[in-house]
Amino acid sequence: VSLNSSDFLFLSTDAMSPKITVELLRQLRQAMKNSKYITEPIQAYIIPSGDAHQSEYIAPCDCRREFICGFNGSAGTAIVTEQHAALWTDGRYFLQASQQMDNNWTLMKMGLKETPSQEDWLVSILPENSKVGVDPWIIAADQWKNMSKALSSAGHSLVAVQDNLIDTIWEDRPAPPSTKLITLGLKYTGLTWQDKVTALRGKMAERKISWFVVTALDEIAWLFNLRGSDIEYNPVFFAYAIIGISNIKLFVDSKRLLDPAVQEHLELDSPSKPELTIQCFPYESVYTELQAVCAALAPKEKMWICDKASCALTQVIPKSHRSAIPYTPLCLAKAVKNPTEIQAMKMAHIKDAVALCELFAWLEKEIPKGTVTEISVADKAEELRSQQRDFVGLSFPTISSVGPNGAIIHYRPLPETNRTLSLNEVYLIDSGAQYLDGTTDVTRTVHFGTPTDYEKECFTYVLKGHIAVSAAVFPNGTKGHLLDSFARAALWDSGLDYLHGTGHGVGCFLNVHEGPCGISYKTFADEPLEAGMIVSDEPGYYEDGSFGIRIENVVLVIPAKTKYNYRNRGSLTFEPLTLVPIQLKMINTDLLTQKEHDWVNDYHKKCRETIGAELKRQGRKESLDWLIRETQPIV
Amino acid sequence: VSLNSSDFLFLSTDAMSPKITVELLRQLRQAMKNSKYITEPIQAYIIPSGDAHQSEYIAPCDCRREFICGFNGSAGTAIVTEQHAALWTDGRYFLQASQQMDNNWTLMKMGLKETPSQEDWLVSILPENSKVGVDPWIIAADQWKNMSKALSSAGHSLVAVQDNLIDTIWEDRPAPPSTKLITLGLKYTGLTWQDKVTALRGKMAERKISWFVVTALDEIAWLFNLRGSDIEYNPVFFAYAIIGISNIKLFVDSKRLLDPAVQEHLELDSPSKPELTIQCFPYESVYTELQAVCAALAPKEKMWICDKASCALTQVIPKSHRSAIPYTPLCLAKAVKNPTEIQAMKMAHIKDAVALCELFAWLEKEIPKGTVTEISVADKAEELRSQQRDFVGLSFPTISSVGPNGAIIHYRPLPETNRTLSLNEVYLIDSGAQYLDGTTDVTRTVHFGTPTDYEKECFTYVLKGHIAVSAAVFPNGTKGHLLDSFARAALWDSGLDYLHGTGHGVGCFLNVHEGPCGISYKTFADEPLEAGMIVSDEPGYYEDGSFGIRIENVVLVIPAKTKYNYRNRGSLTFEPLTLVPIQLKMINTDLLTQKEHDWVNDYHKKCRETIGAELKRQGRKESLDWLIRETQPIV
Repeated sequence: VSLNSSDFLFLSTDAMSPKITVELLRQLRQAMKNSKYITEPIQAYIIPSGDAHQSEYIAPCDCRREFICGFNGSAGTAIVTEQHAALWTDGRYFLQASQQMDNNWTLMKMGLKETPSQEDWLVSILPENSKVGVDPWIIAADQWKNMSKALSSAGHSLVAVQDNLIDTIWEDRPAPPSTKLITLGLKYTGLTWQDKVTALRGKMAERKISWFVVTALDEIAWLFNLRGSDIEYNPVFFAYAIIGISNIKLFVDSKRLLDPAVQEHLELDSPSKPELTIQCFPYESVYTELQAVCAALAPKEKMWICDKASCALTQVIPKSHRSAIPYTPLCLAKAVKNPTEIQAMKMAHIKDAVALCELFAWLEKEIPKGTVTEISVADKAEELRSQQRDFVGLSFPTISSVGPNGAIIHYRPLPETNRTLSLNEVYLIDSGAQYLDGTTDVTRTVHFGTPTDYEKECFTYVLKGHIAVSAAVFPNGTKGHLLDSFARAALWDSGLDYLHGTGHGVGCFLNVHEGPCGISYKTFADEPLEAGMIVSDEPGYYEDGSFGIRIENVVLVIPAKTKYNYRNRGSLTFEPLTLVPIQLKMINTDLLTQKEHDWVNDYHKKCRETIGAELKRQGRKESLDWLIRETQPIV
Repeated sequence: VSLNSSDFLFLSTDAMSPKITVELLRQLRQAMKNSKYITEPIQAYIIPSGDAHQSEYIAPCDCRREFICGFNGSAGTAIVTEQHAALWTDGRYFLQASQQMDNNWTLMKMGLKETPSQEDWLVSILPENSKVGVDPWIIAADQWKNMSKALSSAGHSLVAVQDNLIDTIWEDRPAPPSTKLITLGLKYTGLTWQDKVTALRGKMAERKISWFVVTALDEIAWLFNLRGSDIEYNPVFFAYAIIGISNIKLFVDSKRLLDPAVQEHLELDSPSKPELTIQCFPYESVYTELQAVCAALAPKEKMWICDKASCALTQVIPKSHRSAIPYTPLCLAKAVKNPTEIQAMKMAHIKDAVALCELFAWLEKEIPKGTVTEISVADKAEELRSQQRDFVGLSFPTISSVGPNGAIIHYRPLPETNRTLSLNEVYLIDSGAQYLDGTTDVTRTVHFGTPTDYEKECFTYVLKGHIAVSAAVFPNGTKGHLLDSFARAALWDSGLDYLHGTGHGVGCFLNVHEGPCGISYKTFADEPLEAGMIVSDEPGYYEDGSFGIRIENVVLVIPAKTKYNYRNRGSLTFEPLTLVPIQLKMINTDLLTQKEHDWVNDYHKKCRETIGAELKRQGRKESLDWLIRETQPIV
């Protein structure tokens, strides 16, 4: 699934009706003057879309922006003033937002020249010397800084409102989730949490850092070898951690720690060493506990916190002690998979490929009946994946799209948009799962009848781009964004392109999108690619109103053997972990170079051998036949 | 010539002896306590390497850093405290700096892990509550900000010292240059300065800007269609300008305006319109005049200044009126050449190619005699260029390098390093000139005997990279840095690379390096490429101790015709302006694709036709024969 798309397409959402917000806005505006929550009335209130951990996917209890305005897209910020209510979102969501919001709301279309920024808009409408409120827990420290600066320079001020004002008016707000924790053994993780803490402390010592406040949920899950299901698709759980050179403070709902497996895993009763003793605190007490830690800091002690952490927690740390970093050492350590994790990811991808071979073999039989729809394929894919060992759930909502729906990059089939698969249209499926041993994310674009020459031509350009990245050889230390143009060159030559990045980091039984590496023309703050990192390779082409094409594999960064070795830097390349055939029918082989031609045959040989063996083992005869047919060498 | 190299090679400078600085440092440290210059003693003094305009090349009077420490490389910052003296420079200059400085100085090798930053070093050695001084005219506003912040957070302060303390001890400091101005007519510029001012005011009005402080010398030269020779290689002159919606204030040594040609050009006596009347002021009065303009600003008026302008001028503008921009509208307008400039640049490149064909034909005859050296080739090249119409001078010091000297990316032959050209070694020449009609910059790598297979292999990879950029097709709006990897892919495949950028903007009878576009893996702040922009395309490969290879053309961005046109964005590609044969003997044609093969033949056909015609016209028979031989099609 592609990250950070900036296309200007959107769901067809005819059936949606706007949320009625008159009464909610009245209540919110009362709260903005209510001395119970604030000492002085505020003239505007900002409702960002994130949670306290700046998660990409959020839990229902954190859907505050959706609650107040009705718009449920993944990106958007609402601002309510005494007179106005406005929502900023990007091109993906213009239509959807306009259909989900009633006329109390103004839609601010980001990316259009005439659209003011939130700051400019506030400055243009606020009375002099206004106060703008925001919940400091759900605004990132860097965003707070920018907004605060812009408001101050116009004579206003940004103020932290401790009680979330949406929560005060949200009567049936869901409770924060507190799902059962899963403990992961060495078989999956390769390293005990104790080893991870020790390695982290090594990094801290190197940089003379005495404390590190961990706020990202996937970092905490990775560090402690624990998983949860608090957020759909992301196997994480709500928690904070504060790691000192000789302390480990874990903030999590204490009920979750009653589970004997968790108790044992964390050695709560019998820690092996004093410095590896976990002190457990309630989730909510992170603020006061961090205050206590800060109060006891020696003059030159430094504390790490990610610059994307919440403003609330960041500001607890006095500036002189604070070292804000764009990527934490845990983010970096987590990105470089160890041999056990790599082996586990490979196993997960084999099982996932088995499910997809089953799916495609099934589709070939079923489509002629005319009863297969985008939704039914998505359901079938989930069913087939769930038959595989250690299946936990999906890693993101399945994108299952026929014909023109395929051109909607973040399409998710809904009953009112659901199309039937046929022999006449291109079909794109972007899907993935969470297994105990790994996370998958794969896109295949196929035709069950006869594709047009134009569809084949575009598919082949996308394939050339996919291969250009997958087969690229590049020096150690290269950042992923330098590879992005390789994926586009064949499309560019013909005047085509796609408006999303080419790849994102992939977690190991963790978030399907993770930093700090990726392959995108937009991100220059990415960290260099290293052997052991895992990213997606997913160029595409989207013809509005007609079809969408995307070819996505998850690939592992591995050392490359080269003829020479300039300055002993060493070289890297990619090894595909995803092993699902690429439909030969869609390829115009005349457009391939010999090298690309060989790549396709080598890839299919590997699919046949690796997945074939597993299909045999699982006794899936029909799919094995399908696989063998689909992996014939091209000549 | 390649910009921003970060290689770790250096001149072989055996013959250099260090500058004795004991007495100078004593005097400087006295000045640091002298109440004549500062109200309170300062504990450290920073000596940056730039001038008041942040020029890349500087005039002798501005070589203050060289004066105090002896090191004369293009990049480096000296800091003197009561006890210490240290110089920061990068890997290109480690050896040179260590040889040019005496042992009063500590060399701070930038880029090495153990080397502290200037800020960290100062903080580590300064007594509590120290004052660090710097001349606010030669430190850029953004650098001041960073340094000031770092010092403040450690309890120190950065203070502006109005009198430059180096100048107070520099007895025979050269006078600031004030060379004769050259006026350029429409034939060269395509636009009068009046039209340029009017267009600039249009941009200002669009963004509601009422004043613009112009500080970059090439921007002022371009705006007024004037050139000078205050700085070697760069045809600029010391000046400032302040452009208002109905004012033009030019700050320049008034003697230069006595020239009747300049008077007429600037319409000093009889301006055509009141708003196009130039008010002239002495160069030095820019500070007080800017203060006067600022004092008269209405509350909401905004003033543009480049964020790379000096701290001194930037701080004159109150924050509420200041709009600091990374690239000025003049920088952008100057980068996109108009049809007259493009035609003039083409003419300059034809003449330059004639000189180089003459040079190579001459070299073939002379080299066997064993008397041709790196220096004599550079001199000959200059002589041949000077025979061409409208020749003004060189555009940078010629890099003329034989064998191992070629691996020194910024090599400039000196008597003590001078090597003789032979039939056994690779020869690299990177050179260029200023003509009234344009600026050139070309690199060719040749062998006069029989190159080894390895030399040919490396040359061919570099050529493949050169072609990959030159023939690249990419969408309108693409930034140059996205093309950088194209230049490296062939080298990377074999484990090779080069440690400099691939291209820089080139001025039109202006600086050979100019912003805001370029092709480099390092710069992400570049502006998108547009039709009419001119950049260099110069990948290379450097084998330490053996040889250097670089193939450089200046190329023009032009619209590309493509089969499709995604979202009507349009596509771009490059047209080579440099038309000098690429030595066929150096190419291993087996390594070329058909497309690359065709590119070489098409390019040589164009060289033969265009330069052949001019060689004929100039009656240069021998060079014509050489050209025809060197442009035979490869089969």
